[in-house]
Amino acid sequence: MGEFELIERIKAQFKVPEGITGIGDDCAVIPQKEGFETLFTTDLLIDGVHFILGKAAPFDLGWKSAAVNISDIAAMGGRPVGAFLSIALPQGLDSSWTDRFIEGFAALSEKFGCPLLGGDTSASKVGLCINVGVIGECKAGCSKKRNMAEPGDLVCTTGVLGDSATGLKFILDGCPAGSEMEKYLIQRHYRPLPRVEAGLVLATVTGVHAMMDISDGIGSDLRHILKASGVSAEIDVAAVPKSPQMLTVCEAEGWSTDSLAICGGEDYELLFTVAPDAFSGAESGLRKAGCECHRIGRITAGEAGQIEWLGSETDFRGFTHF
Amino acid sequence: MGEFELIERIKAQFKVPEGITGIGDDCAVIPQKEGFETLFTTDLLIDGVHFILGKAAPFDLGWKSAAVNISDIAAMGGRPVGAFLSIALPQGLDSSWTDRFIEGFAALSEKFGCPLLGGDTSASKVGLCINVGVIGECKAGCSKKRNMAEPGDLVCTTGVLGDSATGLKFILDGCPAGSEMEKYLIQRHYRPLPRVEAGLVLATVTGVHAMMDISDGIGSDLRHILKASGVSAEIDVAAVPKSPQMLTVCEAEGWSTDSLAICGGEDYELLFTVAPDAFSGAESGLRKAGCECHRIGRITAGEAGQIEWLGSETDFRGFTHF
Repeated sequence: MGEFELIERIKAQFKVPEGITGIGDDCAVIPQKEGFETLFTTDLLIDGVHFILGKAAPFDLGWKSAAVNISDIAAMGGRPVGAFLSIALPQGLDSSWTDRFIEGFAALSEKFGCPLLGGDTSASKVGLCINVGVIGECKAGCSKKRNMAEPGDLVCTTGVLGDSATGLKFILDGCPAGSEMEKYLIQRHYRPLPRVEAGLVLATVTGVHAMMDISDGIGSDLRHILKASGVSAEIDVAAVPKSPQMLTVCEAEGWSTDSLAICGGEDYELLFTVAPDAFSGAESGLRKAGCECHRIGRITAGEAGQIEWLGSETDFRGFTHF
Repeated sequence: MGEFELIERIKAQFKVPEGITGIGDDCAVIPQKEGFETLFTTDLLIDGVHFILGKAAPFDLGWKSAAVNISDIAAMGGRPVGAFLSIALPQGLDSSWTDRFIEGFAALSEKFGCPLLGGDTSASKVGLCINVGVIGECKAGCSKKRNMAEPGDLVCTTGVLGDSATGLKFILDGCPAGSEMEKYLIQRHYRPLPRVEAGLVLATVTGVHAMMDISDGIGSDLRHILKASGVSAEIDVAAVPKSPQMLTVCEAEGWSTDSLAICGGEDYELLFTVAPDAFSGAESGLRKAGCECHRIGRITAGEAGQIEWLGSETDFRGFTHF
């Protein structure tokens, strides 16, 4: 399959809204709306680091590579507008692999109104490399940044944590998923759903201060907020929310639920800090958007970046890349 | 060097304009101006395909990876606003390599007011992979696309073609560059300068129809315009502009100047079509911006994508990736 045939096959999977110029020119052209700001995020996925070619299904990998970027838009309180895919294909990867990958990418991005608008394709002599970028928008002045946490804020998360890391443990241990619960957790790892609606709700709440998505686990991600804001936090370890499926499976396997929920990462839930008097507004807004809200601790005025883990002896850390 | 130290070192090389949120959050946040459109482009650079690690100087590679993306913004008539760099580093690549790479990236992007606003860093088990994205802006309705060529248009280019390909021939043949002319051509390959000012000038000329940058050679790139516009072209091979340095060196080596100028690629000059009555306006505008303008042929109403090469028996083609 030639380069241009590949591009045509990719293009066919995405509907581009009227007024936007997508694949086919040197750039995508995206008209701007008055009173909005442009957001942009990008993420690499490298064979052997972020996935193992041959182990991950191409549909799932396409889904996830779109999801993790859209999650970064959600994390600032934005709405995704369009995606960009760069893919370097090693020889020997057949075209059905690429087709399934693109189908997964399209399935997730269509859910969030975020069509592919451009990218780059290349041969690769070094292995499969994927880079995804997503452009988004938010109302001017409404984006939620990492440096906005204030002492006294409550630390909150959407949804539950640790499902993805528990699913990954099954995958890495090579255990065939037997029960429905195990299958559910593995699915949670392979097909995360970014919290776009929740992010849009939280962007409208003035008392919501700092926000980010949970990709490396709160043990790592919360520290980014704390360092950027020059504050510390105390986290009630028992309050970190976990799913019944995860609790049941971990009990059976003898796995530590706290470590998986705090250090596991790849949950793509939102982590945010909110002034106490704005908490109930944030919570009820999230409930209307079909999303749980959990209070797990509070921001304190101690040494920047420090976390006190209440109810545990462990100094939890998240995933680091190098 | 850890991930966050690397990010800090990268961040230190770029000045970000007031009002823009760059490196450090989930997304970059870029305020919009009324009456403008957002442009976005992205390009992969893979070891063994786009460059050879150990052969290309890291400064040059950084320079070029920024330049080729800014060139795509220029190709639509836009102004670059900010860049995004994703880099997957294999083990054993020392931190001075990365520092030089970033310095080259910063040197080029600073020339064009295009600071780094974000990106991603990763370890790589497969080799060095780089992806660059650039966001740009143009006045609403002014971007020049590939599908706008009309029969009767003149086909034009900025600058001269083939310097880069001639320089690359020296590099690939392993000849040490002896003369100043050879050094000049090699420099033209490693340190292209995108035609941002020229693109901005041409964007203001209504009679300029289709435009793109020359990355794969006009033998390939012109066909994109022709196919997208449903037209054909005739090109006067003798009119394809070449530098005195390239002509002199090719004569000494016995190399075909036409093939190098038409099929070589990586010139990052602009290729555009213009209504005959708008040509002199485009030419004088470019001259004021310090840029040559060359008329090399015209658009015809034949079979879409066909090129008649006047004065040559060869059916020139450009570079293809697969």
